[in-house]
Amino acid sequence: MTSAELDLRFGYSAGFVQKKSGIEHRYHANLHESQSELAAAAVRDAVARADIAPSSVDLLISAAGVAEQALPSTAARVLAPAGLTCGTPAFDVNASCLSFLAALQIAGSLLATGTYRRIAIVASDLASRGIDWDDVESSLIFGDGAAAVIVERGDNTNGAIHAYRMETYPAGKSFCEITAGGTRRNPRTGAVASDYLFHMDGKQVFKLASQLMGGFLDRLFESTGYTVTEMEIVIPHQASHLGMQHLRKRLAIPDHVLVDIYGQHGNQVAASIPTALHEAIVGGRLKKDSPALLVGTAAGLTLGGMVLTL
Amino acid sequence: MTSAELDLRFGYSAGFVQKKSGIEHRYHANLHESQSELAAAAVRDAVARADIAPSSVDLLISAAGVAEQALPSTAARVLAPAGLTCGTPAFDVNASCLSFLAALQIAGSLLATGTYRRIAIVASDLASRGIDWDDVESSLIFGDGAAAVIVERGDNTNGAIHAYRMETYPAGKSFCEITAGGTRRNPRTGAVASDYLFHMDGKQVFKLASQLMGGFLDRLFESTGYTVTEMEIVIPHQASHLGMQHLRKRLAIPDHVLVDIYGQHGNQVAASIPTALHEAIVGGRLKKDSPALLVGTAAGLTLGGMVLTL
Repeated sequence: MTSAELDLRFGYSAGFVQKKSGIEHRYHANLHESQSELAAAAVRDAVARADIAPSSVDLLISAAGVAEQALPSTAARVLAPAGLTCGTPAFDVNASCLSFLAALQIAGSLLATGTYRRIAIVASDLASRGIDWDDVESSLIFGDGAAAVIVERGDNTNGAIHAYRMETYPAGKSFCEITAGGTRRNPRTGAVASDYLFHMDGKQVFKLASQLMGGFLDRLFESTGYTVTEMEIVIPHQASHLGMQHLRKRLAIPDHVLVDIYGQHGNQVAASIPTALHEAIVGGRLKKDSPALLVGTAAGLTLGGMVLTL
Repeated sequence: MTSAELDLRFGYSAGFVQKKSGIEHRYHANLHESQSELAAAAVRDAVARADIAPSSVDLLISAAGVAEQALPSTAARVLAPAGLTCGTPAFDVNASCLSFLAALQIAGSLLATGTYRRIAIVASDLASRGIDWDDVESSLIFGDGAAAVIVERGDNTNGAIHAYRMETYPAGKSFCEITAGGTRRNPRTGAVASDYLFHMDGKQVFKLASQLMGGFLDRLFESTGYTVTEMEIVIPHQASHLGMQHLRKRLAIPDHVLVDIYGQHGNQVAASIPTALHEAIVGGRLKKDSPALLVGTAAGLTLGGMVLTL
């Protein structure tokens, strides 16, 4: 979905959407496509690239920002189309846009304690299903997507999580939300159509997030032995044009260090960080043993970051 | 909500609901009450009983079967009313009715790797918001509830998870579901009112679950050094009257070993296992160093079990 197409569709003047959103194009699934099919395709691709037997995956974690349905878990619906073995355990982890980061830390811990040996994590989101097209600010920035990784227990010779930190500030819990979909607003409690759409107070999010980010990064790096300037690659959540620019300036990150796929994908909710990670890996930008920072903010309001090496 | 009240409300003959459901009473929240308030009350109670400072909890996991809303996480909405400190990380884990079990294993691993020192896990579900009152089978068995635990890093002198296992069989993914609430069925894809209600094919669930349970338990106990008959207490998911009876017979569990709160609570979705665990602890039935089995089935279809000692 190019920004030019959106100009035409909603009667904006030529160039308006690209200028306003900072996005050239983003992907929107057709209405007959499903989140679990998209997620399954990402898992199949990850399994193929890792050149492993699907039966060797002993846990599937779905790390979406919004689930496919209220019950059961999205992971249970991804398992079969992903080609994983019946009986493989499957559950969801949800930390909004930072679900992938939380799931990666959980997977690391489950591998370390020997609960599992090889885990597939898939983040998928169809933000287009909840876009409020009457809201100029939020309607232009979201894209759909899915990305998956395979993580496995190592032998301590390569790959490590050097630091992980997450902080949730509920003062921002209503800055980004879809109030329906669960027990709060549904037909029984008198939900109306707009309750099913995404609502965002972008200014408030930006204000609170930029207030908190400096201290958060200090606490994240505190015990790592690294400083933020030593990161050879920074993979941020692709939240917004403004958010990316702020991060670039605030951390003084040179262009060759920052992975910025926002212009070609928009904000893909929980799928943003793993999609950017994928682009960094296939583009040869994330090298073995090079310290990488994954970082971002999420609805909640949550801040999260991880320093890792492959 | 007594079964006698339901007889009156839906015009059943006196005694019908109790006989059909095996339930004397279950709890249903009023429409002005919220899942996050219920969950927060459970966390506050757990913090008070553990006699700890709320600020010492360094992670909150919400382990509900159905979330409060599509975005953000339920955990982010529970944090403040639970009296936990702003900045404490919060995320959701969802494995339907077995969410608490999955969250407990995750918490154990996060404690073992030193990611956190003290974790609050809360399971809350308002099943009453999704009951299809036209469906005699499923409408009579569900209750609302919330229960919380505090788990912390030990010193290897007491408390251990001896075994944990979860298996998901997606052949049963549509046996228990609420198809709306996420990206699949919503106003944009043409959802209708019944899509927001819980639908269950109880016979199929029971058939698949009872087919799989024997082998599942063998695999769970395989490397524990315990047998199922050595369990001094068995805390099952309180799925249904039939399900509880089957478990009792299948495993030949005497009444003093099985924790059966079904008649006074019904099926509380993910809150069932921790509510039964709470009853076992406050009733003095779960003693220190006595091996306990937590076990159940969930939408997905998922089987899960854990052997632990306090």
